[in-house]
Amino acid sequence: MKFATADPDPLRPMHASDARDKPLFTPGPLTTSRTVKQAMLRDVGSRDNEFIELVARVRTRLLDAAGASTADGYEAVLMQGSGTFAVEAVLSSAISPHGRLLAIVNGSYGERIAAIARRHRIETVVLKYAENALPDVREIEATLQADPDLEMVAVVHCETTSGVVNPIEEIGRAVRAAHRRYFVDSMSAFGAVPFDFLGCHVDYLVSSANKCIEGVPGFGFCLCRRAALEAAEGWARTLSLDLLAQWRGLEKNGQFRFTPPTHALLAFDQALAELEAEGGVVGRAQRYRENHETLVAGMRRLGFREYVPAELQGYIITSFRYPEHPQFNFDEFYLRLSDSGFVIYPGKVSDADCFRIGTIGRIYPGDVRALLHAIEDALVQLGMDGAA
Amino acid sequence: MKFATADPDPLRPMHASDARDKPLFTPGPLTTSRTVKQAMLRDVGSRDNEFIELVARVRTRLLDAAGASTADGYEAVLMQGSGTFAVEAVLSSAISPHGRLLAIVNGSYGERIAAIARRHRIETVVLKYAENALPDVREIEATLQADPDLEMVAVVHCETTSGVVNPIEEIGRAVRAAHRRYFVDSMSAFGAVPFDFLGCHVDYLVSSANKCIEGVPGFGFCLCRRAALEAAEGWARTLSLDLLAQWRGLEKNGQFRFTPPTHALLAFDQALAELEAEGGVVGRAQRYRENHETLVAGMRRLGFREYVPAELQGYIITSFRYPEHPQFNFDEFYLRLSDSGFVIYPGKVSDADCFRIGTIGRIYPGDVRALLHAIEDALVQLGMDGAA
Repeated sequence: MKFATADPDPLRPMHASDARDKPLFTPGPLTTSRTVKQAMLRDVGSRDNEFIELVARVRTRLLDAAGASTADGYEAVLMQGSGTFAVEAVLSSAISPHGRLLAIVNGSYGERIAAIARRHRIETVVLKYAENALPDVREIEATLQADPDLEMVAVVHCETTSGVVNPIEEIGRAVRAAHRRYFVDSMSAFGAVPFDFLGCHVDYLVSSANKCIEGVPGFGFCLCRRAALEAAEGWARTLSLDLLAQWRGLEKNGQFRFTPPTHALLAFDQALAELEAEGGVVGRAQRYRENHETLVAGMRRLGFREYVPAELQGYIITSFRYPEHPQFNFDEFYLRLSDSGFVIYPGKVSDADCFRIGTIGRIYPGDVRALLHAIEDALVQLGMDGAA
Repeated sequence: MKFATADPDPLRPMHASDARDKPLFTPGPLTTSRTVKQAMLRDVGSRDNEFIELVARVRTRLLDAAGASTADGYEAVLMQGSGTFAVEAVLSSAISPHGRLLAIVNGSYGERIAAIARRHRIETVVLKYAENALPDVREIEATLQADPDLEMVAVVHCETTSGVVNPIEEIGRAVRAAHRRYFVDSMSAFGAVPFDFLGCHVDYLVSSANKCIEGVPGFGFCLCRRAALEAAEGWARTLSLDLLAQWRGLEKNGQFRFTPPTHALLAFDQALAELEAEGGVVGRAQRYRENHETLVAGMRRLGFREYVPAELQGYIITSFRYPEHPQFNFDEFYLRLSDSGFVIYPGKVSDADCFRIGTIGRIYPGDVRALLHAIEDALVQLGMDGAA
């Protein structure tokens, strides 16, 4: 019953060669539709017209998904590599040679932003909060007021560390009022969390192909305010991750400067069409929310408790505290679930003994229910009477 | 007759969804086998055991393809992004904070190495040669002798600009004699050009997934001398492209630090198996050489002349001078070939009026013959009587 589900859908995996794949309850790479994968059964020239048209279409659709357009002054720039490469592209390209950064941190992805900035010798002020708490917008305002040399503010939208969704609109208003640049790492939220993009006054927003848009990994993307990008002339500290040069290359002839992951782009084009077919960001949010609610209800029934207070918790990924039962051992638990055909996230957050379950990707409430049965079985096997 | 060929092969593209694809006579992304693409019809967890085993297997097979192993003191490190990202990973990670670089340049890829080094404020001495000539090893020796602070020597193996194959073994002996570090950009040669890897005394050799190993784009790789890598502690100028940290991550738990292109890795594992099935580097070299010889003989028959002297010319990519005929127009020529179903490289080298045709990827002499017929037809359509 590996793929048992109550939700019939022509797009869910059915191909013989992936029938053996375990559904991924991870924050990405995640389970993609059969048709997204099949879009990769081609070889296209990276400088040929057909591909150039595809790249242009993808860039427009990404702005569409944000509710923005080039007429609003925004540009979508694609960047090879993982999402972290796109984050580093922003930090290493869009801060002036002596500019300073304010990093708002309540999890590992916020920490990573600060680590990247430090690697580039960008002086960085960190406002740090607990992993299951929200940043304090008043403190952000006061910090910006006290320190006029802080050039950019960076924050993570959904902290995959815990599942907390940060108040990016409120922070955005504070950043705009202080006339600084605003960078949102929306890696695991973009495409499935409706928000007022234009109202956030974002200068740079980053996400990647293999998250809520349900493509395969290979590149990230950045929605950039054109005026901010154009002001960054001469600031890039690397060649590969030079965001302005990447944009100019795409504008000049529609091509990437350096070899793009053509197959991942073919898949992404299909994934964007399927996002639209599902009702766009709102439609996808609906399915993910159902996945999450099914998960939390079932986990509570099994005795698990969430780490993040419900009012701060997003529906992308959920952290559960380790049961206090002496028989519980996470590595054993993970392996037993994997043996029954379910992959959850094998890492823990740094502050607390928790494990995480993602509810994004081409999975449905029926898949979540199947996972819950497997979790119950695993608890029995661990000698815990099927309860945490 | 788009796919007309005299060479029956179970691995060549036959799937309905790629039957419409034009064969790519480009230096990559290139035409891959149907089975390589089908390997991507899966979703695997990037931190799951199955994928960890695949990554380990790929790293071992890459060393195998070089005729080396970890016992020889070498390590294979994979890096997300295009091949240029892997080149930048070496230059930004493996040169000490005040170290200087000697870049040997006879084409755009050599120029790119110098450009990357300059972006990282690495002082760079350039020895520049014509695009259809070889570097002068005596001059390299003299330069190293005169300037003991040149820490690393970088050279391109096969310059895709022109098709020249540089004497990396001879240069390697000179670099070793001078006790400097040696970096070879073997992007478009590795996997199809047999050479004495250990005899080159390479410290870092870079190539990418979508070249002669016939995978799909998404990552590059670097074969590193372990001792050189370990000496580079604290030198990395970026986080994403930190070669030492990437290696340590892979060694620690078999995982990438940041999301890997899982599907491109699935394809690459299959591509490496198919390389082995073709007789390894020697077997693949044989097919590519036949492709090249078929191309050159046919092009000469049509009146074209090569740009690079035959004795310096590799069989990866070949530059042909524009015909002097007044009716010849490259853009028209390219479009007519594309309309008949053949994609050649749409760029020219910088020194001379040339166009380039690649003979790598899952293409066969029969495909080259079909291309030659299309070229003849295109010349007729341009009013050139079918001859250059």
